[in-house]
Amino acid sequence: MKTFQSVILSLQRYWTNYGCSLLQPLDAAVGAGTFHYGTFLRSLGPEPWSACYVQPSRRPADGRYAENPNRLQRYYQFQTVIKPAPKDLQEVYLASLSELGLDERNHDIRFVEDNWHSPTLGAWGLGWEVWLDGMEISQITYFQEIAGIKCQSILAEITYGLERLSMYLQKIDNVFDLIWNENQNNQSLTYGDIWRENEIQQSSYNFEDANPDALLQLFELFEKESYRLVEKELPIPSYDMAIQCSHIFNVLDASKAISDTERVAFIKRIRSMSHQIALLYLKQREEQNFPLLHKHTGT
Amino acid sequence: MKTFQSVILSLQRYWTNYGCSLLQPLDAAVGAGTFHYGTFLRSLGPEPWSACYVQPSRRPADGRYAENPNRLQRYYQFQTVIKPAPKDLQEVYLASLSELGLDERNHDIRFVEDNWHSPTLGAWGLGWEVWLDGMEISQITYFQEIAGIKCQSILAEITYGLERLSMYLQKIDNVFDLIWNENQNNQSLTYGDIWRENEIQQSSYNFEDANPDALLQLFELFEKESYRLVEKELPIPSYDMAIQCSHIFNVLDASKAISDTERVAFIKRIRSMSHQIALLYLKQREEQNFPLLHKHTGT
Repeated sequence: MKTFQSVILSLQRYWTNYGCSLLQPLDAAVGAGTFHYGTFLRSLGPEPWSACYVQPSRRPADGRYAENPNRLQRYYQFQTVIKPAPKDLQEVYLASLSELGLDERNHDIRFVEDNWHSPTLGAWGLGWEVWLDGMEISQITYFQEIAGIKCQSILAEITYGLERLSMYLQKIDNVFDLIWNENQNNQSLTYGDIWRENEIQQSSYNFEDANPDALLQLFELFEKESYRLVEKELPIPSYDMAIQCSHIFNVLDASKAISDTERVAFIKRIRSMSHQIALLYLKQREEQNFPLLHKHTGT
Repeated sequence: MKTFQSVILSLQRYWTNYGCSLLQPLDAAVGAGTFHYGTFLRSLGPEPWSACYVQPSRRPADGRYAENPNRLQRYYQFQTVIKPAPKDLQEVYLASLSELGLDERNHDIRFVEDNWHSPTLGAWGLGWEVWLDGMEISQITYFQEIAGIKCQSILAEITYGLERLSMYLQKIDNVFDLIWNENQNNQSLTYGDIWRENEIQQSSYNFEDANPDALLQLFELFEKESYRLVEKELPIPSYDMAIQCSHIFNVLDASKAISDTERVAFIKRIRSMSHQIALLYLKQREEQNFPLLHKHTGT
């Protein structure tokens, strides 16, 4: 039996054996693994980089009070990033599925062309959705541009939807019934045992009880801080502030407190912050002579 | 060679085999693993619970611009919690060290009585520091009170300092020289390769460039939200707000923006929030007839 946690342990083992650095999730509420320092910042510039990590991803608008078997306001992504992208990426990815017991000879696995873009991060890439027996389980993207800056070296990002993949492996059709762990002391828990109450309460907050006035004030404060810290030449603390803005915007959006026009304006404000931060981070790495580039080539 | 990431993988394997649920770090900046839902909320009430997870822990005042070989403003804790506390906790803990290659027959391992308390969480417990050949590597605590509420069932918390433990295993005296990962493609990275720049910038922010006016406004906004959400009977979203207050307070404290008297007042404000949240959470679990209690006893 592949429990939810053993799927994570298997992917960690597979990708660390491949050579990725195992990072921990970013300790901030984000909408996707792409926001982690390990993808957003490290995708910039020519330095080689490979990492893997889980990222809890909060998508306020997707919550359903734990009443929908497939939708969650917070789910788990497993993210692998490799720069430069290896030539045999599809094969390496398929071997990771095989590690989970999903051999391509026994399943219908398709790579469906799907280009990706993130308006808040000013990013886009070429890539595929991966379909397993008719269900989307991963997204693979070759980054072309991030924060409005053309990528000097192409980073490949693989994102696994951990709940979907685990539901498939356990042949279960309600995410809350997923077996999280298993043990001999009869203390197996389901996804619902651990997270049902959280889904209900966070859905209530996001849809009904968020306070748009407070959120707007928070957005303004964090935005001002983000720009001030760019002035101080501190892109990483500045990025922490921009990430807060991004999550606040997602809650505002879920709570229907903003019009379509305001929505577009907020996205633009976050993209502008990301752009300033990325420019500064890249400039600093260049001034440091791109440390990881020279570490690996030995020059 | 035990790399930094392989120490994490070994502890995950050991404690999941023991029966703990593997959780991911809380996606919020916190000062210790104790703040994670998986400890703070789950320590309340009579329900059995066992979990393990890494938690990045941000302690702004401890940063040293990456210039001190032992001090960091953000370090990694590995946290194990078991409720009720097992009788053979010391033996089970020692076996976890043995899994890392630290056999008690070859090392001087001491349990030094050390009672713990957290003023912001209104928590205290009885326990030990664990010393390995003269260096503190873990803290073990039996929770007596949390959020000012007497514990109905005693939770045991084991906290490993991952950097310290890894430095010992690698016989290295500068944290930035720790080998993070190892691989055949010559892409081994050190702790410093990944995190030096972050330490420098976050130290600058915490000590010099934080904006006390903005932080005070943020504290007030989050505090008001936390209480408002308790009124709405939403302890988990309320707790997210209290956690933000706690981190903001830690930054204010590091930036020397508050007097000793104000410091005490802030701690009390956070403790009050925690208390309200815990009371409500516990009341709701009781109304639900403590689901995990009955799941495990089958009643």
